[in-house]
Amino acid sequence: MTTNVQVVLASRPEGWVEESNFRIVHSPLPQPGPGEMLIKIHWLSLDPYMRGRMSSGRSYAKPAEIGEVMVGGTVGEVLESNGARFKPGDFVVGPLGWQQYAVSNGEGLMKVDRNLIRPSAYLGVAGMPGATAWTGLLEHCQPKAGETVVVSAASGAVGSVVGQLAKMQGCRAVGIAGGPTKCDFTVKELGFDACVDYKAANWRDALKTACPDGIDCYFENVGGAVMDTVFQFLNPFSRIALCGLIADYNATDPYGVKMMRALLINRVKLQGFIVSDRVDLYSRAITQLTKWVAQGKLKYHETVAEGIENAPKAFIGMLKGANLGKQLVKVA
Amino acid sequence: MTTNVQVVLASRPEGWVEESNFRIVHSPLPQPGPGEMLIKIHWLSLDPYMRGRMSSGRSYAKPAEIGEVMVGGTVGEVLESNGARFKPGDFVVGPLGWQQYAVSNGEGLMKVDRNLIRPSAYLGVAGMPGATAWTGLLEHCQPKAGETVVVSAASGAVGSVVGQLAKMQGCRAVGIAGGPTKCDFTVKELGFDACVDYKAANWRDALKTACPDGIDCYFENVGGAVMDTVFQFLNPFSRIALCGLIADYNATDPYGVKMMRALLINRVKLQGFIVSDRVDLYSRAITQLTKWVAQGKLKYHETVAEGIENAPKAFIGMLKGANLGKQLVKVA
Repeated sequence: MTTNVQVVLASRPEGWVEESNFRIVHSPLPQPGPGEMLIKIHWLSLDPYMRGRMSSGRSYAKPAEIGEVMVGGTVGEVLESNGARFKPGDFVVGPLGWQQYAVSNGEGLMKVDRNLIRPSAYLGVAGMPGATAWTGLLEHCQPKAGETVVVSAASGAVGSVVGQLAKMQGCRAVGIAGGPTKCDFTVKELGFDACVDYKAANWRDALKTACPDGIDCYFENVGGAVMDTVFQFLNPFSRIALCGLIADYNATDPYGVKMMRALLINRVKLQGFIVSDRVDLYSRAITQLTKWVAQGKLKYHETVAEGIENAPKAFIGMLKGANLGKQLVKVA
Repeated sequence: MTTNVQVVLASRPEGWVEESNFRIVHSPLPQPGPGEMLIKIHWLSLDPYMRGRMSSGRSYAKPAEIGEVMVGGTVGEVLESNGARFKPGDFVVGPLGWQQYAVSNGEGLMKVDRNLIRPSAYLGVAGMPGATAWTGLLEHCQPKAGETVVVSAASGAVGSVVGQLAKMQGCRAVGIAGGPTKCDFTVKELGFDACVDYKAANWRDALKTACPDGIDCYFENVGGAVMDTVFQFLNPFSRIALCGLIADYNATDPYGVKMMRALLINRVKLQGFIVSDRVDLYSRAITQLTKWVAQGKLKYHETVAEGIENAPKAFIGMLKGANLGKQLVKVA
């Protein structure tokens, strides 16, 4: 008899997440009721926002409860349908969590076309991370041709799309990433104009050299010392899309940003945002991104962990920057 | 024979401004050429932005040069006019600097009506500081009735207008100021709902109590630890008008702001701004403010130093928070 393997939150982390904060649970296969479906999960998405859900502190979504299955975006295949919106054989994308099987009434799920692009891409470049890049850059930064766009965590699921969209807008795209492998990837594979390794000595000078005309748009995923350094090169009337602060997520004492004065003297607009606040833009973003991926205009890379049991280790690795591109778990 | 007394920049300050950074200069009365006027300055405005002009570092305006008359807004009376825009007896407002007499071709000057409100008010509540409050609050924060507006340096020339405009919008107006005298002034004289003394013990708790529904709009004049504390109580989708960071202006090592995460999780919009960027709004703001002062709807307080020779001491006092309301120098 088939069982379901799930990853539940065992305890809340203090500082860095550890594998002991999770527990692997084996349970009977769930049975769909009337109007419900049984879905076999093929791909699980791992994203930085999940770190916030593990803590009890105030954030933009309520925290996960101890003992609950971890939240997470997935792509899965409908196995059975008791009169639900989708039929057996359909592939759907949606928040079904860290597990092998799920029962759903279809709420929050969207059917995806496996023939257009690979299913896993609906969790990355043509999914929530892609739409995050699209919304933050095009809606909040509104870059104009000829401007310089800088993005941190440049080789990640969001950052890699930000830089490519910036190039499509006729901008200079400059990434910030940790280590030469990630930097090379963004320039040689994704077409960024330059990428600066923030782990290298004198990276401030390298950033200055990479942005000879200053910085007009900054897409921030990282925070901390990276943010403070970028602030030094902001141009008048520049725009910042504040998407993430992964450097702070595991810090018990956050970094203190000293360059606030740069936001004043340059009359900067900084906008904190979450993709889900702009549902009005989401489907337009996904439609465009999917088309561009299918046309080969948007490239992406995936780092894949095998098996749901390895999700905790892969998640911790992602928080520490071990992944290149989108971090996924191949569940089936 | 009448001479002109001027205050020139003698040296650039390192850290706190000292009187030795200025020099008092006696020179012959200037003579207006064709198309020019001789103006006798009655009032000089002292404002925090002048600190920026004293330094050579990059800011939003070019620095003052060593040996040059210090820049500053003034109200003066036209004594002679060689075919210029204004005639003898006219009172004008404009940037004529720290001196007793000036020659001008009228550029940047505006005639003011002494019968409508007191001339000195055109340097404060109905002048640049008032327009700064108007632009930052109404244009950048856009407060809605019932929301909570917090302003730092609440008893100052800008802050005192921000709180009163917030009340006109139907908002709860909460000030932050240094010491009980300033706090009492904003509540008892200006009609703020509450004011928190940031020099008092446990002022964080006092701010929390003063903002039972959190903070929707923050008008920032101060920065540093005040900013970091306010960030803790921001509501989702709140707006920050970043107008000044006086806490940092004399610091050789600026304070590090730790609560950037609050801007992310609350999807905050922060806008750095300078009133002169929005010339499209300036005359509308001044017209409204002048009317409200004339009608008694907007109140103000002035701290007056006597004589141009005392401008340096008064300026340093203002940077340290010694003034209540608008800091002026009565030149004549």
